[in-house]
Amino acid sequence: MMTGTAHLFIPGPTNVPADIQRAMIVPMQDHRAPEFAEILQPVLAGLKPVFGTSEAQIALLPGSGTAAWEAAITNTLSPGDKVLMARHGQFSALWADMALAMGLKVEIIDVAWGAPCPVREVERRLGADRHGEIKAVFVTHNETATGVTSDVAGIRHALDASFHDALLFVDGVSSIGSIPFEMDAWGVDMAIAGSQKGLMCPAGLGIIAASPRALAAMDTSTMARSFLDLRAMLAAHQAGSFCFTPPAQLLHGLRAALTRLQTEGLANVFARHQRLAEGIRAGVAAMGLKMVAEHQIFASDTVTAIRTPQGIDARDVIAIARNRYNTHFGGGLGPLAGKAFRIGHLGDLNEGMCLTALGIAELSLKAAGAPVVLGAGVTAAQHVYAGVAQAPALSIAAE
Amino acid sequence: MMTGTAHLFIPGPTNVPADIQRAMIVPMQDHRAPEFAEILQPVLAGLKPVFGTSEAQIALLPGSGTAAWEAAITNTLSPGDKVLMARHGQFSALWADMALAMGLKVEIIDVAWGAPCPVREVERRLGADRHGEIKAVFVTHNETATGVTSDVAGIRHALDASFHDALLFVDGVSSIGSIPFEMDAWGVDMAIAGSQKGLMCPAGLGIIAASPRALAAMDTSTMARSFLDLRAMLAAHQAGSFCFTPPAQLLHGLRAALTRLQTEGLANVFARHQRLAEGIRAGVAAMGLKMVAEHQIFASDTVTAIRTPQGIDARDVIAIARNRYNTHFGGGLGPLAGKAFRIGHLGDLNEGMCLTALGIAELSLKAAGAPVVLGAGVTAAQHVYAGVAQAPALSIAAE
Amino acid sequence: MMTGTAHLFIPGPTNVPADIQRAMIVPMQDHRAPEFAEILQPVLAGLKPVFGTSEAQIALLPGSGTAAWEAAITNTLSPGDKVLMARHGQFSALWADMALAMGLKVEIIDVAWGAPCPVREVERRLGADRHGEIKAVFVTHNETATGVTSDVAGIRHALDASFHDALLFVDGVSSIGSIPFEMDAWGVDMAIAGSQKGLMCPAGLGIIAASPRALAAMDTSTMARSFLDLRAMLAAHQAGSFCFTPPAQLLHGLRAALTRLQTEGLANVFARHQRLAEGIRAGVAAMGLKMVAEHQIFASDTVTAIRTPQGIDARDVIAIARNRYNTHFGGGLGPLAGKAFRIGHLGDLNEGMCLTALGIAELSLKAAGAPVVLGAGVTAAQHVYAGVAQAPALSIAAE
Amino acid sequence: MMTGTAHLFIPGPTNVPADIQRAMIVPMQDHRAPEFAEILQPVLAGLKPVFGTSEAQIALLPGSGTAAWEAAITNTLSPGDKVLMARHGQFSALWADMALAMGLKVEIIDVAWGAPCPVREVERRLGADRHGEIKAVFVTHNETATGVTSDVAGIRHALDASFHDALLFVDGVSSIGSIPFEMDAWGVDMAIAGSQKGLMCPAGLGIIAASPRALAAMDTSTMARSFLDLRAMLAAHQAGSFCFTPPAQLLHGLRAALTRLQTEGLANVFARHQRLAEGIRAGVAAMGLKMVAEHQIFASDTVTAIRTPQGIDARDVIAIARNRYNTHFGGGLGPLAGKAFRIGHLGDLNEGMCLTALGIAELSLKAAGAPVVLGAGVTAAQHVYAGVAQAPALSIAAE
Repeated sequence: MMTGTAHLFIPGPTNVPADIQRAMIVPMQDHRAPEFAEILQPVLAGLKPVFGTSEAQIALLPGSGTAAWEAAITNTLSPGDKVLMARHGQFSALWADMALAMGLKVEIIDVAWGAPCPVREVERRLGADRHGEIKAVFVTHNETATGVTSDVAGIRHALDASFHDALLFVDGVSSIGSIPFEMDAWGVDMAIAGSQKGLMCPAGLGIIAASPRALAAMDTSTMARSFLDLRAMLAAHQAGSFCFTPPAQLLHGLRAALTRLQTEGLANVFARHQRLAEGIRAGVAAMGLKMVAEHQIFASDTVTAIRTPQGIDARDVIAIARNRYNTHFGGGLGPLAGKAFRIGHLGDLNEGMCLTALGIAELSLKAAGAPVVLGAGVTAAQHVYAGVAQAPALSIAAE
Repeated sequence: MMTGTAHLFIPGPTNVPADIQRAMIVPMQDHRAPEFAEILQPVLAGLKPVFGTSEAQIALLPGSGTAAWEAAITNTLSPGDKVLMARHGQFSALWADMALAMGLKVEIIDVAWGAPCPVREVERRLGADRHGEIKAVFVTHNETATGVTSDVAGIRHALDASFHDALLFVDGVSSIGSIPFEMDAWGVDMAIAGSQKGLMCPAGLGIIAASPRALAAMDTSTMARSFLDLRAMLAAHQAGSFCFTPPAQLLHGLRAALTRLQTEGLANVFARHQRLAEGIRAGVAAMGLKMVAEHQIFASDTVTAIRTPQGIDARDVIAIARNRYNTHFGGGLGPLAGKAFRIGHLGDLNEGMCLTALGIAELSLKAAGAPVVLGAGVTAAQHVYAGVAQAPALSIAAE
Repeated sequence: MMTGTAHLFIPGPTNVPADIQRAMIVPMQDHRAPEFAEILQPVLAGLKPVFGTSEAQIALLPGSGTAAWEAAITNTLSPGDKVLMARHGQFSALWADMALAMGLKVEIIDVAWGAPCPVREVERRLGADRHGEIKAVFVTHNETATGVTSDVAGIRHALDASFHDALLFVDGVSSIGSIPFEMDAWGVDMAIAGSQKGLMCPAGLGIIAASPRALAAMDTSTMARSFLDLRAMLAAHQAGSFCFTPPAQLLHGLRAALTRLQTEGLANVFARHQRLAEGIRAGVAAMGLKMVAEHQIFASDTVTAIRTPQGIDARDVIAIARNRYNTHFGGGLGPLAGKAFRIGHLGDLNEGMCLTALGIAELSLKAAGAPVVLGAGVTAAQHVYAGVAQAPALSIAAE
Repeated sequence: MMTGTAHLFIPGPTNVPADIQRAMIVPMQDHRAPEFAEILQPVLAGLKPVFGTSEAQIALLPGSGTAAWEAAITNTLSPGDKVLMARHGQFSALWADMALAMGLKVEIIDVAWGAPCPVREVERRLGADRHGEIKAVFVTHNETATGVTSDVAGIRHALDASFHDALLFVDGVSSIGSIPFEMDAWGVDMAIAGSQKGLMCPAGLGIIAASPRALAAMDTSTMARSFLDLRAMLAAHQAGSFCFTPPAQLLHGLRAALTRLQTEGLANVFARHQRLAEGIRAGVAAMGLKMVAEHQIFASDTVTAIRTPQGIDARDVIAIARNRYNTHFGGGLGPLAGKAFRIGHLGDLNEGMCLTALGIAELSLKAAGAPVVLGAGVTAAQHVYAGVAQAPALSIAAE
């Protein structure tokens, strides 16, 4: 039997704080009653600063982030439209698959898993698109599979530099609410989040913010849509309601989550994610392991994907952590299966939790046969958290 | 400030029993871990008898019953296909709208709101469909807007009698789990439910059961689908998982709900719904009010829609009940707005709750100006619940 | 299996509202940390108006109201001291037993169960106590066993009229927070409550308020005490803490309960209890049953004890309500066992709940063989709740 | 604002596991109904093996462990009786104070805080008690203030060797359920626990087990008692009930806690506590700090009291941990205030949590000015948890 806290370090769903958990324990209520708007409106209003927008309209989609991906496509584009995107991890790959399934032409820029969306190449492709065939550019802001953050502002710059008027869609599922996201400043047209990551709630709601340009595109889009019809949902939201029975408990949870983010202050939330992530990265380096992210500069502040040493199956590391230490790491996805494990470090997190992640990762790696020096990673992270500029060169001999 | 129990008599979401509420308070967990299958598999298995099927495969769709409606369409049909359905209430009307939005031709049989799906007319249309253009028949088993239950077995008989091989899709959102539903016996190809009615959980999951014929139709359907791709979801379920992050708390809730249904026994659940509904109907009759359902024989055992007397706005009745008595009735939808209110009587319910519904309905109707004799409805229901065959002829003079 | 709301009409513990239930779901915390005072202090401050005091000091005693009874005795009196009290129900009888067990001389005024504390007789005894041997008068403000409220202000008047300086101790367990209680105005020296009645929390805390005179008496009392030493607890409270590990979750619950009472407004809370109780009493009368309370004028607004008709065992009525209708009434205590059942109507309550209580009481009485006319009680209560001055004379023939 | 898990390492209340937390979220219920026994009886039965008894009777006392201390005294002893006990920490000192307050003569053996109850000296005193004046020996099994476990079996042996028939009372509040406790084998007459330590529930219940000899002593005891009258409570328990309204939610919690202990297996629970404690002690030693416990051999497996280095105020360490790292350590009590802090490591705990405790202790000590090498303690604990016999001699230079 597992005892003690189940240490959850998957990159979502994330740990739900006690006050959010509590807020969701509500008797059922009439979603058509006037009181319902009193819950919905503050949630919609409170999400705007988290998305970095004052101009966009926000819709909550019962379902998931995947539903929001699809809604972005089916509400603004038409069959046969061309979209441009990089494929550099499991989630960008899945979004590309979806675009194909929905009848789009998808111009894919394949780069290594571990690289970010290549801004220059995007700019080159946009520049080459003389006839404006590219209707939208899709960017995965934070590739959860590889722990890589892409430069959305750079993509906006590329669009502007090319005088290209493609829409800009950004998957912010594992970034929004945890690291800076500036929808208006970056000229994002569709920004997509979910309830279960930086917003610290269970899964069950996709969240989508649509810019005025995206809203306008809905008038010409010819894709079939009904369940995910954004105009209907936005109109219902305007009236304080939903098109169909919503998961009301999640609205109560989101309201509590937004209160938390406001109380901590978004700038502090982002700084905390950065500080905690630096500790994790220092720990990984001190363990002598490599990140999947090709360079520190792209490394995500919400999730770190770590390659296991040659000959060590990451699935064993994960199974040992789970079965022996009640600790849950994310697995390597797609081609990274068995070759990497992931530490999610987003949402409601603190230093002690990060030390646990590293301490248990060390124990599990060692038990799986990796030549890890116990304590090395934890110590390095402690030095970061103690505010010591540089961890001392530890002269721990390999055991 | 409202005090006391919020008496919820809307036809969904329904009251969540304490043990289900409790079961959903779970720390987040890794939906890709092997343990996850231990929650998912019993839910999928436990739903089968509730749907009356051993042959169908069941998928859980994060979203709602509306998502399941759409999944039924997009996974089995192709643009331009013709479907046949009756329109006799808000929910059948919305499903027809969806079918149109998804590119189907919809042959609609309009009947009065208050009538069921007209079996003979369906049979006539099927017989007239010489070239087999009708690919599917849609039936709203329980029209939640009017409180009318349709005869699904009769529709199956109509199909068989016409030697017609159209698929049979049934919206069982407000019937499954509360009144008998026999997917296999009735030859239903797609049966649709939601988590928030007879299954006594919050909203957030659509549930769909697909017959072998429906599964086969997925191979030829050419509709675009991705988020609601059933083959992908069924394959993921087979592996103990979901295509994307699921609302795991609802799975815990569903598991507890299925345990409740099994403990009470489905036959007892159905008998209880019938007994409680009879009390409500006896009460409505004793109040001198008319049901929207045209005849007792179609009257639903899960929801009763009640016409207010001439000159009495049902919205006033509902507002009085809500604001003065902390009691929530459903409103009249579409053309019934202001003309009817609805008492939902499904899910976790007992006699005392039904007496409250009637007692507060009387007080609210009276306060809204209706010539209701206080106590008449409650008394009639008590006689039903006491097992007295006939309520005595009350000689209460109108006040 | 029981389904639907478990209708709880015992006179405590009472129904815990959803927001209080939620407030108690807290991670454990350090009761010696400075933050703890942030929970404790508002609870202590918020209780004062509920007790009607600005002068008294309040202590929370892990345990129950019974613990507070004992604390009142052992902290202010000495072995052999004489106390005066009426015995007119189970709870006054138990308090008298306790006083004897703690070594007091107890001058008991036995009156009928159903009568209140006899103010004139108390005044006579006090007047006869020439040597001031009576050190304290004990009053059970609301005798929960009989549904009778006593006149505490009258007792104070009796003390004053006799120029007697005995302390005045009042058991307000089932009155405080539900009906007016004026500790300062009535010159009460020790007032006792529990968490589980008008304060709408689970059981687990006795609450005691000590007047300056009671505090002074602690200096001379020679009774042994340790766990229930009030001076130690008051000193700990002063420092934001407890003498030993407290049930912290109940403090969170009390804080939420006080917020509810403040939001509704105490005057409204009292008026609501009175209005709801009047409906219950009208219902009981319309059923043709007698209250245990000898006269309407003493009838409690928090609990009604009802005699079953000759030949009808009240335990059968209670068992039928419980087993058939998931409804819980209080039993007759002591000599009333089998002869009476009790409807608690205090705490978080509304009209619909009271109608359920009466409706199910009728069904259960009838099933137990009582000649009750179904609907008569509910109808009478509805007339009260509808604001109709008089219920019409119903010409329902006895069945 | 504090974020992330509040790491709770006080020695009680301990972390409440999610399933116990969930089990306590119950609607209120009638504690006089027959169903109540269905909750109470398994709790009483399930506690017996945890106390190591088949002969004793168990009573649940709303209140706390302190209430159970008092009940042990007032139910079996008489004013003026002599009891023998060691005073070697805050809790043994408080129990001695209580014994004095209740009118006992207390023969105290004062030993250093950090030493256990001195078995030989107890044996000497018993041998010297020619006239059998000592009616009871009190032992604090686990002195929570110092982290020292005493040898109860040794005290039993001392009693037997002296042919002394004093009763043996043991405070097992921070031991029972976490480390071996053998009431019958050790001949304990009164064993005392609370709900909030090894039993993983919130505070609110004292638990007392009375041997047949203790039960017999109740017939002759002349101490005043009422709220804590054990014979009345045991009789009520026998009938499936309580003498007064109990905190029913805690019974639900205890039932879930006992299920956890049974599922894990008591032997495994004890082994886990030992293994985790060894890691903590290895960590403390590697940090170069001293335990309050005078010798490893007495060191408690449930709590470690750690002396801060000369010049470092333990209160600073605790405040830094709390305010900067959302981590809660216990303070030094009485003469240890400012000189020691305590890590509670009992109840629902695992390796990752212990690494957090040590990692955050290091960071906090360092921030308070202590010459601690970051990572040293964590590393040492990891070696214990990895099953490596000896931690390697780390050549980490002091910074």
